[in-house]
Amino acid sequence: MAAKNLASCLFCKIIKGDIPSFKLVETELSFSFLDIGPLSKGHALVIPKYHAQKLHELPDEYLADVMPIAKKIALAQGAENYNVLQNNGRLAHQEVDHVHFHIIPKPSKDEGLIVGWPAKTMSKEELQALHEEMKGKL
Amino acid sequence: MAAKNLASCLFCKIIKGDIPSFKLVETELSFSFLDIGPLSKGHALVIPKYHAQKLHELPDEYLADVMPIAKKIALAQGAENYNVLQNNGRLAHQEVDHVHFHIIPKPSKDEGLIVGWPAKTMSKEELQALHEEMKGKL
Repeated sequence: MAAKNLASCLFCKIIKGDIPSFKLVETELSFSFLDIGPLSKGHALVIPKYHAQKLHELPDEYLADVMPIAKKIALAQGAENYNVLQNNGRLAHQEVDHVHFHIIPKPSKDEGLIVGWPAKTMSKEELQALHEEMKGKL
Repeated sequence: MAAKNLASCLFCKIIKGDIPSFKLVETELSFSFLDIGPLSKGHALVIPKYHAQKLHELPDEYLADVMPIAKKIALAQGAENYNVLQNNGRLAHQEVDHVHFHIIPKPSKDEGLIVGWPAKTMSKEELQALHEEMKGKL
């Protein structure tokens, strides 16, 4: 699948080299670099070389390329604890409208990603009904 | 790379079918199912059929298989806003010691994943030094 760029997109400009970055791993399909407003030391981003706002809009070959790069970066960060996060949509904390995966070391309780976990209770019947509904869409 | 199981692992038991689950997509290398303690309706997990606690311990073929499945699930969830999250280590909110990727719809401010973002300030010199250090480990 051919690359797709958007002239006005910050991350497309970084991929092209029109805006400088602290580049880490680059492949045919992906680019990665240090986040310059990090949550912790080593916080990095992996982005596909294909302009899409959200994960479900990406071709599979670009999606498949990302996590092996995240692994290389995690090994270079050397953190015992870390989070991999990808946000879709403003409500879900996406700030740049080009798919990006954060690899964020978690060195202490107050540094790195802060995760809030408001778990819900769903009955077995509710889960079964949802399961049937989702299977019908897969 | 051959599959690897751990008899005492909850997720290895789910993969084998010894513990029932609301299965979604299954491939040769991955398994996915509904989270029964969801953060929002549709919250699902994708797990590799290879027992490893942390992402950087997985063979690349297992890593490459995950995101195309996450995409299928996101499309079935149909959420406009959603987060993809993978936690490594207790401090980073990992609760089951088998790599798992959460796909979590974000229907409202209070439902779904709550993201806290304590961004740090790093000088260009600090970033340059870190960049050199990490490139040496890639």
